[in-house]
Amino acid sequence: MADNSLFQSDLTEYVGTAAGHTIGMVIANVDSLVRELLHISEEYASLGILTSRTGAAAQAYAVDEAAKATNVELLIFELPRDTEGYSGHGNLIVFGARDVSDARRAVEIALAEIDKKAEYIYINEVGHMEMHATANAGPVLHQIFNAPLRKAFGFICAGPAGIGLVAADVAMKSAPVDIVWYGTPSINLSMTNEIIIGITGDYGAVRKAVDTAYERASELIEVFGKKPESILYFTR
Amino acid sequence: MADNSLFQSDLTEYVGTAAGHTIGMVIANVDSLVRELLHISEEYASLGILTSRTGAAAQAYAVDEAAKATNVELLIFELPRDTEGYSGHGNLIVFGARDVSDARRAVEIALAEIDKKAEYIYINEVGHMEMHATANAGPVLHQIFNAPLRKAFGFICAGPAGIGLVAADVAMKSAPVDIVWYGTPSINLSMTNEIIIGITGDYGAVRKAVDTAYERASELIEVFGKKPESILYFTR
Amino acid sequence: MADNSLFQSDLTEYVGTAAGHTIGMVIANVDSLVRELLHISEEYASLGILTSRTGAAAQAYAVDEAAKATNVELLIFELPRDTEGYSGHGNLIVFGARDVSDARRAVEIALAEIDKKAEYIYINEVGHMEMHATANAGPVLHQIFNAPLRKAFGFICAGPAGIGLVAADVAMKSAPVDIVWYGTPSINLSMTNEIIIGITGDYGAVRKAVDTAYERASELIEVFGKKPESILYFTR
Repeated sequence: MADNSLFQSDLTEYVGTAAGHTIGMVIANVDSLVRELLHISEEYASLGILTSRTGAAAQAYAVDEAAKATNVELLIFELPRDTEGYSGHGNLIVFGARDVSDARRAVEIALAEIDKKAEYIYINEVGHMEMHATANAGPVLHQIFNAPLRKAFGFICAGPAGIGLVAADVAMKSAPVDIVWYGTPSINLSMTNEIIIGITGDYGAVRKAVDTAYERASELIEVFGKKPESILYFTR
Repeated sequence: MADNSLFQSDLTEYVGTAAGHTIGMVIANVDSLVRELLHISEEYASLGILTSRTGAAAQAYAVDEAAKATNVELLIFELPRDTEGYSGHGNLIVFGARDVSDARRAVEIALAEIDKKAEYIYINEVGHMEMHATANAGPVLHQIFNAPLRKAFGFICAGPAGIGLVAADVAMKSAPVDIVWYGTPSINLSMTNEIIIGITGDYGAVRKAVDTAYERASELIEVFGKKPESILYFTR
Repeated sequence: MADNSLFQSDLTEYVGTAAGHTIGMVIANVDSLVRELLHISEEYASLGILTSRTGAAAQAYAVDEAAKATNVELLIFELPRDTEGYSGHGNLIVFGARDVSDARRAVEIALAEIDKKAEYIYINEVGHMEMHATANAGPVLHQIFNAPLRKAFGFICAGPAGIGLVAADVAMKSAPVDIVWYGTPSINLSMTNEIIIGITGDYGAVRKAVDTAYERASELIEVFGKKPESILYFTR
């Protein structure tokens, strides 16, 4: 983020950046033809936009926190094949707000949260993983990943895909949790080289399953090189 | 392009290279089983082939010029997820010709045009964009992007995808143009991390909209690093 | 592959690594919810898993050899868009076995075979290709690529996609072979920048066609840089 107020004043849409090569922006009054194209309800004059080259769930969990704290609705969540050389997703997230101050506030909260959640995206020379858990899923995690509202929700993702499968298997054996969403390269995902499960249950069980998956996926990815490190330190 | 006639004489298919890691080739008489596989009409003995790791619209506009100047028909236009580490497309373009001299001439024109149009593909450390305009859309832009024939046609593309959305919005507000084609990662595109609009209108209006989108997308991509530069200087 | 038995003893799933950034693993008794998710028959308690960032056919041919020599059945074969910066596929391969020793044995055979077959995946600065032939297709090549059982089967793949088209054309003209499978970026493939054909016929004819395709694709890819080299020497 360029700390240059002159520069920022020229870019009314720009809000800031976060880890995963994420940029946050707002549109105060969306153009009517663009609105029509994207099937955006007239209820929302303003859009909040978050878009990243790296990460899917970190941004989803972050936007979920933003949606809990503000008056916005998730309109678009798309997962391009990206991760800048790794085998996962980037993202495009658009939410609607009645005015630009709501949109901007939601983007600001989400950017700050992404810088926390991106700690749980890890890479080494070859593999990557995302491992997240919340005690309290909000409307965005519900909408995207079928997470039960106000229940614990965990996200287990690793690539190459077979490592994600082993991580999912050990996670499920480690604690009494249920699977509410999943993806393989060609099912629910965008031809990424990953397997993902979304799990629910008591928070303690979800936490245990996610931590178990983290340990196993980390060890397996490490056969290709270094112990996987958080992306937080090198894609901001 | 290797300027080595001995080498070229051994490779009857090879015509040349252009920016975006593009290669141009011809097949004088396509094999009958390959013809059947690709549903190529018997009308065309010869194929002209252009294929690139980086770029979609630059090559489309270039092939449009080639099709205006020669007697060929576009048969295949596919957009793989590529761009060599960036979040856009590469391309596969095949056109049919009655004889190999027509096919070769069209490929030669297209390669020369790609070296001009690729000036308008820009990248920096993280983002990319393509911004094109023509006063006079030909049969290829009509066929691929629904551009009205012999009218002005502009192409606005930026990634990560959210930047493309802001660029599209400011472009539409800057001039009286209409949207005739669009793409998001999972709509009309190949899971690329981009948003694209194809626009029409008076040439002055299309030019204004494309230039406005260029300025805004360039400023937004620049928050991730350098001012975006044309790929012309490093993917030939 | 880390030659550290202490390390391996902690990771009951880990079997080994091979070229193409491939890892081989087993699950002795797959979790019942994961089984249900992936529609795995109760017949199979154990899973063998192979997953790679680079390569499609090398791994398919290798797993075909493993399936011929052991008592396993291919359950999942998915081709994510990957190849670590190149324009092809990675893979996810899961097979079922009645017990873990069968699963492990099949994974061990497959890993050893991948280190042989990956010799026929080649890259240079821009392009890539895979060129394989067997005299005797087994159940895996039959299931994935429609190869006639116990007949010769050849695989011709090159990218950028247009080079694959020329390679396919010269191959078909060089010997009396038939096409039993094919892919373009958006047909049968995962938005990769490739064209692929799978061919059958007498082994001599299949060998001739594959060798001809290799020569032509290699020369065409070389216009972008060095003569393409086997990945065997740098993605293990």
